[in-house]
Amino acid sequence: MMYEKGQRGASGCLVKVGDVSFGGEQLVLIAGPCAVESRAQLLETAVAVKEAGAVMLRGGAFKPRTSPYEFQGLCYKGLEYLAEARQLTGLPVVTEVMDTRDMAAVAEVADMIQIGSRNMHNYALLKEAGACGKPVLLKRGMSATIREFLFAAEYILQQGCSEVVLCVRGIRTFEETRFTMDLSAVPILKDKSWLPVMADPSHGTGDARLVPAMARAAVACGADGVMLESHAHPDLALCDGTQSLSPEGLARIVCEMRLVAEAVGRSLPMPISVCKEGEK
Amino acid sequence: MMYEKGQRGASGCLVKVGDVSFGGEQLVLIAGPCAVESRAQLLETAVAVKEAGAVMLRGGAFKPRTSPYEFQGLCYKGLEYLAEARQLTGLPVVTEVMDTRDMAAVAEVADMIQIGSRNMHNYALLKEAGACGKPVLLKRGMSATIREFLFAAEYILQQGCSEVVLCVRGIRTFEETRFTMDLSAVPILKDKSWLPVMADPSHGTGDARLVPAMARAAVACGADGVMLESHAHPDLALCDGTQSLSPEGLARIVCEMRLVAEAVGRSLPMPISVCKEGEK
Amino acid sequence: MMYEKGQRGASGCLVKVGDVSFGGEQLVLIAGPCAVESRAQLLETAVAVKEAGAVMLRGGAFKPRTSPYEFQGLCYKGLEYLAEARQLTGLPVVTEVMDTRDMAAVAEVADMIQIGSRNMHNYALLKEAGACGKPVLLKRGMSATIREFLFAAEYILQQGCSEVVLCVRGIRTFEETRFTMDLSAVPILKDKSWLPVMADPSHGTGDARLVPAMARAAVACGADGVMLESHAHPDLALCDGTQSLSPEGLARIVCEMRLVAEAVGRSLPMPISVCKEGEK
Amino acid sequence: MMYEKGQRGASGCLVKVGDVSFGGEQLVLIAGPCAVESRAQLLETAVAVKEAGAVMLRGGAFKPRTSPYEFQGLCYKGLEYLAEARQLTGLPVVTEVMDTRDMAAVAEVADMIQIGSRNMHNYALLKEAGACGKPVLLKRGMSATIREFLFAAEYILQQGCSEVVLCVRGIRTFEETRFTMDLSAVPILKDKSWLPVMADPSHGTGDARLVPAMARAAVACGADGVMLESHAHPDLALCDGTQSLSPEGLARIVCEMRLVAEAVGRSLPMPISVCKEGEK
Repeated sequence: MMYEKGQRGASGCLVKVGDVSFGGEQLVLIAGPCAVESRAQLLETAVAVKEAGAVMLRGGAFKPRTSPYEFQGLCYKGLEYLAEARQLTGLPVVTEVMDTRDMAAVAEVADMIQIGSRNMHNYALLKEAGACGKPVLLKRGMSATIREFLFAAEYILQQGCSEVVLCVRGIRTFEETRFTMDLSAVPILKDKSWLPVMADPSHGTGDARLVPAMARAAVACGADGVMLESHAHPDLALCDGTQSLSPEGLARIVCEMRLVAEAVGRSLPMPISVCKEGEK
Repeated sequence: MMYEKGQRGASGCLVKVGDVSFGGEQLVLIAGPCAVESRAQLLETAVAVKEAGAVMLRGGAFKPRTSPYEFQGLCYKGLEYLAEARQLTGLPVVTEVMDTRDMAAVAEVADMIQIGSRNMHNYALLKEAGACGKPVLLKRGMSATIREFLFAAEYILQQGCSEVVLCVRGIRTFEETRFTMDLSAVPILKDKSWLPVMADPSHGTGDARLVPAMARAAVACGADGVMLESHAHPDLALCDGTQSLSPEGLARIVCEMRLVAEAVGRSLPMPISVCKEGEK
Repeated sequence: MMYEKGQRGASGCLVKVGDVSFGGEQLVLIAGPCAVESRAQLLETAVAVKEAGAVMLRGGAFKPRTSPYEFQGLCYKGLEYLAEARQLTGLPVVTEVMDTRDMAAVAEVADMIQIGSRNMHNYALLKEAGACGKPVLLKRGMSATIREFLFAAEYILQQGCSEVVLCVRGIRTFEETRFTMDLSAVPILKDKSWLPVMADPSHGTGDARLVPAMARAAVACGADGVMLESHAHPDLALCDGTQSLSPEGLARIVCEMRLVAEAVGRSLPMPISVCKEGEK
Repeated sequence: MMYEKGQRGASGCLVKVGDVSFGGEQLVLIAGPCAVESRAQLLETAVAVKEAGAVMLRGGAFKPRTSPYEFQGLCYKGLEYLAEARQLTGLPVVTEVMDTRDMAAVAEVADMIQIGSRNMHNYALLKEAGACGKPVLLKRGMSATIREFLFAAEYILQQGCSEVVLCVRGIRTFEETRFTMDLSAVPILKDKSWLPVMADPSHGTGDARLVPAMARAAVACGADGVMLESHAHPDLALCDGTQSLSPEGLARIVCEMRLVAEAVGRSLPMPISVCKEGEK
């Protein structure tokens, strides 16, 4: 299998997206809102998450929602705003695609394509992502086994894409939290494959109060980075507000993760906002 | 919600596909191979399942497989064979679509579109299915809640399609069978919505030896019909052979289900093959 | 293993408790209240469930409750009432034991000892039950595998007890019902062992409205009988009222199960109350 | 509820067992073999785990095993050896009790009583533990909800015991590891109650190769300590050898946890064996 250790060529285990390297000594922090809601919301949040330490911006233009009557995302307009946010902040952008027919348009804007949990078994989409020419962030299906997860990555790799990053994000169990954070998958995936592994404690717990603890734990158990939902004004978020962090909360978590990263031989830069604070 | 009881108009709770009615007094038996493997295999199996009592033919032209290196289906060629099988047997055809871009082609051939378990959360596909003009068979996602399942149906209904049939097919649990058959979902779904509910014990158990018991139980708890994998030669099946029934096994189960159907005030016709046997 | 097919001697697969045979052609109906609440409640309910078709009385004297502040059962007083109810109705009694120190006292009164789901892994209790001289009804642990369940039976058999009956009662999954009814375990258990298998749809669903459908399904998939919670006045029940049936509801389900039983080559007597009704 | 924050009196959130404090700034490391197998094995392992950093010794005299034909523990002889190991090393001892009738004998030897996962719902045992006069380590049931877990603690507290420590140890899910490590339960439990929370990555993963990552993660997310299975010779262990650490492996993990502990404002002493190494 192409995902197996030893099947990776010259570039070792690194996956590069612009200046960002997944799988290296330095951890990757991706942050941003659940959904792109408006130009103002996205630009404000993008600037804020950059200050708080993010090196990549996330934000959904196309949103998979349980009910068809919930906000479905701004779609193509959302992609435009993401492009503008990148120009403003310099942060590369990762965003989800849900339909094979949108792949080309999304790949034109996004620096990295996200395949969400609900589409991990959508093999047509995986193949299209593997052929779109952009790196892919693949989230674990909510009840996918490790084998199914790695084979989903293989669908992408097989199309010629060699830049795939895995992301654990909670699994469905009897527990009463929205999902159960599946951190033991991190060392298992690192053992079985060369692919970098991210963790998403925001979806993994569905509760912003649990995110700091799970973000620290993700770093401690070997994740190559963390993906966090952050919103300039979590109370006003159109989706997943209860799991979104304020920019201040985000910066605080980054400081905490930074210390844990050093304890496990990795690094994470100090948030710009905290440095500025210190200079005063 | 459009799936709720009372939201169904003149046609009551019936969903019609050709001469087949889902949700009426007579139960519906859908049978056929997991995958269309060849013209000969499909035609032979189609004739055999009709003799064994099926009123609709199933068979995958596009197959969602865990590994990209497994047989992926005959795709468009498979659709041709399905059309031929219908012509030969008169059985309407239900087949899965996995990519929005294939919807028109599949809808041209299929009498009913199937959305598989892995794509129940694929909202782009649900919307396209709802707009394609054909009835839709929607399978429950392997870890979807009842609410998520009904909202997936709502995505289809909202597009103007009024012919949606639900199908339970096993959920992912700690049990060691491939899936755990979720029969208690049948009375729950019948209570919350007007949509007919089918059961698929072949996928629900993953083991042909358990299929007869679970098919009888599905009928007993109120399912409007059963979907069964059958192959003219299960030993030679390219996928899911261990859960496939021989035509003789299928006819035997139909006879068993028939008696249970009568016990719960429903009916199921005697298999043609058994009638012939009796005439000798 | 002693639970395996072929390891059962002269008595075949039958387990006898007084005049009641588990595993024979005739299905067994056990019914009664969740808990013994008072002398009047138990006697009234015992008479009513007998009229409704029960051949054995259930009722908890010792109750395992999630909170220590909930009603814990009448304990020894409850055993006295059970003995009185047996004398009044002639129905043999099955009741749960939770503490090795109570085994002798419970075995003196009960015709059959119940090991509840929460104690299926309580090996000290299993051994004591196996040595107490009475038949044992063993319920599946809420997350026990089939292998663990059968080994729990083996703990009892190994102590010299040869009268063990298994009972499925729902497993813990992501579903939102109290438990997910594990009916596919019935044919699996019947395949792997000679032990009779009962089903408890009251606990398996936690909702009286789902009980009729699941009771019929249990019979259809091969269960040797059904255990149902019934209370003379479900609204007044001190525990599990929402899953308790009225005597009328119980009789109605028995009539439904009776028809399904005949459809699968088994039998269940008509409730006395229905026969009387017919005579008028 | 007595487990709730604010219901703890003068001693704050600390639970003391001899010189060991659970819930303080310094993390607690409990280590030892799964089972007491022999005098030599226990004494050798006890000395080794102390050198590797353990401040409390674990070891099962009574072992809950899935099969009655597996090694069941040395029982009372095992208690004797535990007492001897304490005398030799000075480490307080925690050991499991499985039968109410053994409580007094176990409490005489043990410094802390363990209630295992399989008996978390064994309310008779919980009550007896709460009345035995010793602190109690309560492990989460393998499919217990947080509410059920905290109520199990309440059963103990209600008996007058005010020294209860919780321990997460993996839950049963669809994943293929023996259990899924339930680390998000740590911050949830810390939020809802004043009880100290330990984590057991050995049982939580069932695989010694995953233990280091999960032990670090447990510390990072706020656990008050870690319980680890260690055996002087893991290859020769009579039970759970695959999840047991060698003393060298244990010391290595302690060094790793130590760095993470400091990153989150806690501490863990350097293993004696590592200090000695450094002196050379």
